[in-house]
Amino acid sequence: MDTSFFDTVKTGDASLPERVAGQISQLIIDRHLTCEDKLPNEFELAEQLHVGRGTVREAVKLLVARNVLVIRRGKGTFIARHPGEVEDPLGFAYYADKIRLAQDLLEVRTQLEPWVASLAAQRASAEDMDHLREAALLVEQDIFSGKDHLGQDTKFHICIAQCTQNLVVPKLIPIITYSVELFGSLNGNVLLSETVSAHRAITSAICTRDAKAAEQAMAQHLEHNRAELALIVKELGGPTFS
Amino acid sequence: MDTSFFDTVKTGDASLPERVAGQISQLIIDRHLTCEDKLPNEFELAEQLHVGRGTVREAVKLLVARNVLVIRRGKGTFIARHPGEVEDPLGFAYYADKIRLAQDLLEVRTQLEPWVASLAAQRASAEDMDHLREAALLVEQDIFSGKDHLGQDTKFHICIAQCTQNLVVPKLIPIITYSVELFGSLNGNVLLSETVSAHRAITSAICTRDAKAAEQAMAQHLEHNRAELALIVKELGGPTFS
Repeated sequence: MDTSFFDTVKTGDASLPERVAGQISQLIIDRHLTCEDKLPNEFELAEQLHVGRGTVREAVKLLVARNVLVIRRGKGTFIARHPGEVEDPLGFAYYADKIRLAQDLLEVRTQLEPWVASLAAQRASAEDMDHLREAALLVEQDIFSGKDHLGQDTKFHICIAQCTQNLVVPKLIPIITYSVELFGSLNGNVLLSETVSAHRAITSAICTRDAKAAEQAMAQHLEHNRAELALIVKELGGPTFS
Repeated sequence: MDTSFFDTVKTGDASLPERVAGQISQLIIDRHLTCEDKLPNEFELAEQLHVGRGTVREAVKLLVARNVLVIRRGKGTFIARHPGEVEDPLGFAYYADKIRLAQDLLEVRTQLEPWVASLAAQRASAEDMDHLREAALLVEQDIFSGKDHLGQDTKFHICIAQCTQNLVVPKLIPIITYSVELFGSLNGNVLLSETVSAHRAITSAICTRDAKAAEQAMAQHLEHNRAELALIVKELGGPTFS
């Protein structure tokens, strides 16, 4: 076992389990371990890192909490499918002013998502297009059967992001489509018919490689959301920044 | 003590400490607790949540690992300053193809940051402008004294984001300025003089409220980075997507 990665022991304020967690992270990075790979067992790690097995166990718990590692019962500890990715990584759930947050998220989406739709139209593969049509259908199914469609709605927007072939965009979109859910909770889903027609227009534009139309359809979709949000804010009597 | 937040106990696959961590999170959200606030003690939480103190302790550890809570020695457990925010929340460190990642980050920055600079010029307060000039100076000081300026460089870009008065943008920028550091590690800091002149142009445009000039100066700065990155990729013999 190569031990060079153990040379970079962080010193400073971090606790011992925290430092050992850092070393294990570095091991995952250096060896390009992926979700197929099992982490060396506690005993082996303890020996290599010159720490007790209790410390290794604490370090592993930290990395599980951060979604770097996953424990599969009876099978051992594995690298997570998307190591280090966490739900709500920017802590939006902890913001008090949800209206302001919804407005600011929408402002960022308005800058980003029409461009994303345009890139998607230019770069989507045939397979991407199939996924996109499927994702659009699932949103409609939820809407027409009276179910909560927001989970599928977010997936639809992530699907568009995946069509861009950019590694970063699909990671960013879930962060800002946090607003989809937030917005849904604010407006009580009054936009259902607009959602169906807008999603159809966006899907059709991307699948015919019409970048300009995709960009416009997305911009229009978000503008509709913005107007609706402004109305809600007005009713609530709060300030509006739009 | 109001116990309504305990009604929404998540069931399902999550472990007991994981579910209790969810309840404590909900408590923080419902009560608008901030970094000034201390979490109720273990004993109180255990009683309220009808679980053992060991479980509460495990749940608290999970929330510390996720930067929702911080333990101040001898003082107790407090809410973190930016609860839920983690470093590298998208797990970029775990990507194998750093070149592709650097290119894709730069593509997103090119779409986002000129717009951010333009908003900054329109909305920065006098205080924001002071901070921005200071941030620009600190980058120059590091460069001229031969130090690693990348930490200050990232802060400069975050400072611009703060001028927008948008809650979300300053949270998003550190994610994509991950590329600043990545880029620095790839190009060995050959862009130093360009960095100084570009940062000066951006700062000056924002501080004179010239939105168009701010947008253009930022776009030019990023285009310079893109060209440099393309050159590095060519030298390395890898594929380029630009």
